[in-house]
Amino acid sequence: MVMSADHSVTIKDVASHASVSVATVSAVMNGNKYVSPELAQRVRESIATLGYKRNSFARGLKTQISYSIGLIVPDITNPFFTNIARGVEDVANAHNYSLILGNTDEDPEKEKKYLHLLESKQADGLIIAVTARSREYLQELPLRDLALVSVDRSLFDLGIDTVMVENREGTRSAIEHFIALGHRRIGLVTGLRGIAPTEERLAGYTEALEKHGIPIDPALIAMTYARIDGGEQGAMQLLTLQDRPTALFLMDGTMTIGALQAVARLGLRCPEDLAIACFDDFTWAPVMRPHLTVVDQPTYEIGQQAAHLLFERLLNRKKNPREIRLQTHLIVRETCGSQLPIKE
Amino acid sequence: MVMSADHSVTIKDVASHASVSVATVSAVMNGNKYVSPELAQRVRESIATLGYKRNSFARGLKTQISYSIGLIVPDITNPFFTNIARGVEDVANAHNYSLILGNTDEDPEKEKKYLHLLESKQADGLIIAVTARSREYLQELPLRDLALVSVDRSLFDLGIDTVMVENREGTRSAIEHFIALGHRRIGLVTGLRGIAPTEERLAGYTEALEKHGIPIDPALIAMTYARIDGGEQGAMQLLTLQDRPTALFLMDGTMTIGALQAVARLGLRCPEDLAIACFDDFTWAPVMRPHLTVVDQPTYEIGQQAAHLLFERLLNRKKNPREIRLQTHLIVRETCGSQLPIKE
Repeated sequence: MVMSADHSVTIKDVASHASVSVATVSAVMNGNKYVSPELAQRVRESIATLGYKRNSFARGLKTQISYSIGLIVPDITNPFFTNIARGVEDVANAHNYSLILGNTDEDPEKEKKYLHLLESKQADGLIIAVTARSREYLQELPLRDLALVSVDRSLFDLGIDTVMVENREGTRSAIEHFIALGHRRIGLVTGLRGIAPTEERLAGYTEALEKHGIPIDPALIAMTYARIDGGEQGAMQLLTLQDRPTALFLMDGTMTIGALQAVARLGLRCPEDLAIACFDDFTWAPVMRPHLTVVDQPTYEIGQQAAHLLFERLLNRKKNPREIRLQTHLIVRETCGSQLPIKE
Repeated sequence: MVMSADHSVTIKDVASHASVSVATVSAVMNGNKYVSPELAQRVRESIATLGYKRNSFARGLKTQISYSIGLIVPDITNPFFTNIARGVEDVANAHNYSLILGNTDEDPEKEKKYLHLLESKQADGLIIAVTARSREYLQELPLRDLALVSVDRSLFDLGIDTVMVENREGTRSAIEHFIALGHRRIGLVTGLRGIAPTEERLAGYTEALEKHGIPIDPALIAMTYARIDGGEQGAMQLLTLQDRPTALFLMDGTMTIGALQAVARLGLRCPEDLAIACFDDFTWAPVMRPHLTVVDQPTYEIGQQAAHLLFERLLNRKKNPREIRLQTHLIVRETCGSQLPIKE
């Protein structure tokens, strides 16, 4: 499989050896246009015989285009970001672009390293879910020609294309659902502070309570982070209060796994003792008992739209920045019950 | 943020402008060594003032190294592959390499396109979960210098480094668990035929039955594919049999979501009417009721080990190929009950 390549052989040499056009050789190598199996086989034989190797470095030097884009997210194993990645990758692939992936774990130092890495590879564009501290250095980095699109977190005020969901409205709809069922003590487990989804969902929570004349009780808000153990810690903190909440809203789906484990450990029943809902739907939600009530967001579409914006930006750098807000939907299943849990 | 770059400015010009060494400029740009914030700031200002831009294309032409590796999987949204991707990416990042991601959906044509794309970008190496048909063309492709490691599927007989789990042993342990609980009619829902995990798990299933003198009944084996709807179809097919199985083994975790939906739709109870187990553990398994019995496999470690093999291969192309088999563990929870389900 490993052969040495002769870099003096050109695509024209291959075309001439196989008695086809340069365009046909190119189509066989890119696999992006139909070439008959016989012709493709002939071209491949000529490539092998001559030891031809395309040289993306030489092409890049000439065009300054790398045909790759980056995607930097906190953690690809959070299904929210997995689905975004799949959306981005499908669009990139349709454009014959490669997707370079990075995980920051919300760490600005890791993020900086990726930004340098992508800049040094001359990625043409980058889709990024920035950390809480990225604004401090993002504009000072030598990013130059790198086109940027922000997902999940907002950089629109910096003139950067942004794709987000209606975080405030989505959260408000869930909290108002709790209120309609008679809840007054509604707990909130947040993600990391300083990023737009957390701040906007927090705003949606307080808006809903204020609208219905329910005072904000800071004791009912647990500040954690969007991982399983963050959800578990937050739920434990709130559910062991002397006057514990009758309803709990988690800002992220993965947190809900941890929260439900806390609920089970405390011997509480859902929805009998506690109503639960969270932001983000999950493939496993349908097999949970009881079924989880969620604020659904179009994760795959966030990735798709971000990639579309990025490719538009690559075509026209002067276009006015755009912010796309995608809608969320409250899906009422079973974890909130149909009335206020009976207090013990 | 978007500035034009002057490609005639060199790293030496930046070092001289900032009165630092070339090594310091390089450290600031790579972010891989400690530089004091003041010095880093001075270097960044010089980079901005002079409009310096590193040129990976020129570096690549000289070194023929791209500092990127590819990962091609069927579908990144299957948590099995998500965790592998995270394992690979963490190792790549530690080596200052970028990870390029591709999804084939088990389609050989999509796979070929990615192989061409990665070859044209001169990725240094590639980790791949090949499709059932990849062997037909893999050796004929002009992959040349691309180092390869196979994950989940076996290419070891082609002299390619391979990382897999003990599929046969893992499946056998689950089937023997069913048998020990008194089951004789054990259904199997398979993934795509022709790939090693499916064939090896099928072998583990038949081995376990034969060892205990239970005849193989082809009617109890549903051939589907590793997606939610594949699991649902397979479970429906087997559970609507006149003499339906009393136990069901799913070859993949995502399939189990679909199977459990089928079970619910048929009004069957688990474990009372039907015992269920599957290959692959899941983050959501702890919040399912009843808890799912699974054959756990070290998904993150598969990715890590594959990346380690790839970087070893990049250092020494002549090293003998290696096959790494990672162990699986049967985790007995609640979905198999403690005895044979009572037949209705």
